[in-house]
Amino acid sequence: MQIFEINSALDMHLHLRDEDMLKLVAPKTSNTFAGALIMPNLVPPVTTKESLLSYKDRIKEACGDDNFEPFMTLFFKNDYTYEFLNDIKDEIIGIKLYPAGITTNSENGVSSMDIETLRPTLEIMSELNIPLCVHGETNGFVMDREKEFMPIYESLALAFPNLKIIMEHITTKDAVELLDKYNNLYATVTLHHLLITLDDLAGGALKPHLFCKPIAKRYEDRSALLNAALNAHPKLMFGSDSAPHPKHKKECCGCAAGVFTSPIALQVLVELFDRYKKLENLNAFVSLNAQRIYNFKAIEKKVTLVKKEFLVPEIYEYKNENVVPMYAKESIAWSIESIK
Amino acid sequence: MQIFEINSALDMHLHLRDEDMLKLVAPKTSNTFAGALIMPNLVPPVTTKESLLSYKDRIKEACGDDNFEPFMTLFFKNDYTYEFLNDIKDEIIGIKLYPAGITTNSENGVSSMDIETLRPTLEIMSELNIPLCVHGETNGFVMDREKEFMPIYESLALAFPNLKIIMEHITTKDAVELLDKYNNLYATVTLHHLLITLDDLAGGALKPHLFCKPIAKRYEDRSALLNAALNAHPKLMFGSDSAPHPKHKKECCGCAAGVFTSPIALQVLVELFDRYKKLENLNAFVSLNAQRIYNFKAIEKKVTLVKKEFLVPEIYEYKNENVVPMYAKESIAWSIESIK
Repeated sequence: MQIFEINSALDMHLHLRDEDMLKLVAPKTSNTFAGALIMPNLVPPVTTKESLLSYKDRIKEACGDDNFEPFMTLFFKNDYTYEFLNDIKDEIIGIKLYPAGITTNSENGVSSMDIETLRPTLEIMSELNIPLCVHGETNGFVMDREKEFMPIYESLALAFPNLKIIMEHITTKDAVELLDKYNNLYATVTLHHLLITLDDLAGGALKPHLFCKPIAKRYEDRSALLNAALNAHPKLMFGSDSAPHPKHKKECCGCAAGVFTSPIALQVLVELFDRYKKLENLNAFVSLNAQRIYNFKAIEKKVTLVKKEFLVPEIYEYKNENVVPMYAKESIAWSIESIK
Repeated sequence: MQIFEINSALDMHLHLRDEDMLKLVAPKTSNTFAGALIMPNLVPPVTTKESLLSYKDRIKEACGDDNFEPFMTLFFKNDYTYEFLNDIKDEIIGIKLYPAGITTNSENGVSSMDIETLRPTLEIMSELNIPLCVHGETNGFVMDREKEFMPIYESLALAFPNLKIIMEHITTKDAVELLDKYNNLYATVTLHHLLITLDDLAGGALKPHLFCKPIAKRYEDRSALLNAALNAHPKLMFGSDSAPHPKHKKECCGCAAGVFTSPIALQVLVELFDRYKKLENLNAFVSLNAQRIYNFKAIEKKVTLVKKEFLVPEIYEYKNENVVPMYAKESIAWSIESIK
């Protein structure tokens, strides 16, 4: 039977939420991943050392797995001081910038992407070598939001040449192309954006569990993303953007954006890379690229997968929380055999 | 207080379903409209004189309003005979063509839009002067399906110059432009496509009650539709495509396509035409154009609306059926004052 080993898988864009939802979803990542970059869009957002360290403690407790590293991020603010960032820099892997209102719990994001407004914090980050993670969408038409953000990425890349800028969860051909244009631009891509287009969300019946931000785009966009991932583009990292919402907030008349992929991510990635005969590139995409880009050494965690059918659960539950995973009740061709 | 009168409103594209759902929704149209063109996509579809007349009887009974005319349509088939169509032609206002699988209950639609395959039936329709109503979408990417269908409309218009072809529920600038290119092309447009874009469905939270086929498009498309409607383009008719599905089929993990607008259509149309100071064109858009295009005289029904707030019900129910209307629990600026 065909097997494949993933070494020290890293999820470089993850939402763990808090309280019971955190307790429900954190082990689904820490079980198979060696580390994950944790998004700071709690309510209120993570903007102080105290809230950051306290959240990290809650994550570690929820994971119940010492063999997992949560890489913490701060929620971007225009008025962080040098003293504050210098003091916190060893506790964080980056700072996440959200345009206000662009996605879940982003109400406190920046109200303007004007470079001069952002400059004070970005200059300090540049000097302290703190990467900038960006949710790159304008407030334009939903299919154009990422494309319209490209000039902003270009301005940032040019204005702060020493700042590492990560275009988070890219969904377009335009973003893939921009990767090769600026040395200091990097990107994450999710599992679901390698798999779906708008047709999967709304081409047949409407599928709220595939509703995410940025929204899934066109076939040519998916092809560009898939091509970059399968070939382990050196500036591209896996970041699931796994974003749990309870079932009642997904199947309702105003459904929240986010796809929950943590428990199936590695199985589906192996299935995908195997289908395109690119398994030799998977460890770079899912681990080595991130270690090189963020300049750290991941802890050892070896996951062995086997080509054996895995039936995805209908729902995951903990106390009063629940979440429906992507591919609920469907079969994946690969299963996890062992984790060391 | 501002008032406005609509004379003999006609809904030239309506889904009434069957059984209890029919009983629930039919009065919501027959109450305010003088007539409606009834879609034949039941299960099984309406393809015989017997099923057509029987459905018409059930509609009349469900309406409980003698002052309402259901204009019946047949479900298009490639093998209708001259004898059959000649015999039924006085009972129908048109024949509705669906590409197979393109929307609700369209599984028995045509599997090919090849002109030669369609020719036998279309030549008979041409000769008997039976209009062709078309759901014009390809099976391509969801945002491109209507645009990709334009060459098919052009081929049909050229191949059958004496056939009246109605492009149903148009959603794009491309379709509006095509109206002026061929004498024998006409169109209906829904209420919701005059109001929403993809942003309303999926730009913020996902709104299953705004999920419809064809899907709502871009702002420039909505502008083109709105411009044509507000100016009562002589080849454009109101057709709500009001398409009820029970709440549990709209708020679930595979939501059905269709917006239920019948009970609010006239109020919202008046609000819209009033906002753009085009009320003088509304009776043409909602009645006179259809009478001229389909060449009939509508029965008298005068609806007086008044500029007074109308709170849209959360849900409409009958026995075990229910349906959530567009703008549920929201306010509309105009109410129905009287119906004569």
